[in-house]
Amino acid sequence: MASLGPSIDELMQALRCLPGVGPKSAQRMTFHLLERNREGGERLARALQTALDNVGHCSRCRILCESELCTRCRDERRQQDQLCVVEMPSDVLAIEQATQYQGQYFVLSGHLSPLDGVGPEALGIPNLVEWLDSGSIEELILATNPTVEGEATAHFIGELARARQIKVTRLAHGIPLGGELEFIDSGTLSHAFSGRESI
Amino acid sequence: MASLGPSIDELMQALRCLPGVGPKSAQRMTFHLLERNREGGERLARALQTALDNVGHCSRCRILCESELCTRCRDERRQQDQLCVVEMPSDVLAIEQATQYQGQYFVLSGHLSPLDGVGPEALGIPNLVEWLDSGSIEELILATNPTVEGEATAHFIGELARARQIKVTRLAHGIPLGGELEFIDSGTLSHAFSGRESI
Repeated sequence: MASLGPSIDELMQALRCLPGVGPKSAQRMTFHLLERNREGGERLARALQTALDNVGHCSRCRILCESELCTRCRDERRQQDQLCVVEMPSDVLAIEQATQYQGQYFVLSGHLSPLDGVGPEALGIPNLVEWLDSGSIEELILATNPTVEGEATAHFIGELARARQIKVTRLAHGIPLGGELEFIDSGTLSHAFSGRESI
Repeated sequence: MASLGPSIDELMQALRCLPGVGPKSAQRMTFHLLERNREGGERLARALQTALDNVGHCSRCRILCESELCTRCRDERRQQDQLCVVEMPSDVLAIEQATQYQGQYFVLSGHLSPLDGVGPEALGIPNLVEWLDSGSIEELILATNPTVEGEATAHFIGELARARQIKVTRLAHGIPLGGELEFIDSGTLSHAFSGRESI
């Protein structure tokens, strides 16, 4: 590939750290920013630096936030006896948007993956155990992703809670609303069939 | 959408200036940068600011570059009598990569689009006319995109060159290599058919 200069090459390379951005998209983004939207580029550079400087993790629930405790952990009106464990901050946003849940969250920032060296410490599970040991939690809601790793992580955390006589629940699996039976994968369908409910 | 804090919201908004990035991708990119790849984020913020500070346009061919004249315009071994007009800097890279062309380029940074207020001045056509008037160009190669706007722009520039007795050529249109007749759009096929060559 012919080069247009070191700063342009470096920008194309640096853009590839974004998820889903390959060489072609990075080139397109570079030309767009430099040819057509320099103001947008300035804003992005500033926003990125500000966020990197200011954003850390909530010391209680580990979600991304800009202070010691996030707004949800500071909010005393929320229920203190329910704790929902999720993999990513985006899962918290999705649950907040879709449900009436008013309890606490704990963000793992990933799932157990021994082959990649992601063990319980990397997911903050010692903090979670401390929280469970404090005696304030009555129900632990497992909302990890329905993948092999997510299920394994949920199982691991579920055992920790059961050992402390805490009620453990997990999100219901089944046919998504608006789905057509014909197009649902057989794993989900078999799960939904065997877990049929009386109406 | 629940908010995680002003810096995070601002970063999500700012990322949307990138082409092809909507709200969902922006959120994914934000979490990826802040949760998993802060080094990549720092590098991106630095690279973006450096590029915005250093990269301008070549005063001769208008390509993005970091000095007064780009490397191609400074290279005296390149042919001085051929000039290829393209819409975008990426087109120059594509031609350099695919062909043996050793002449000059002129980058319009767009195409004529009167409805959007893009006239000849915005495309640097006065500079192009000056170049054509200098008498050094023997062949003007039109390599704008084969879209309605690109063709109109090519026609406009072609007339300017013809008025100065400069030979005007444009890239051949036809069936792409490796294409299957069955799947080629009818405009291209009819163009290729009427422009058939004897072998």
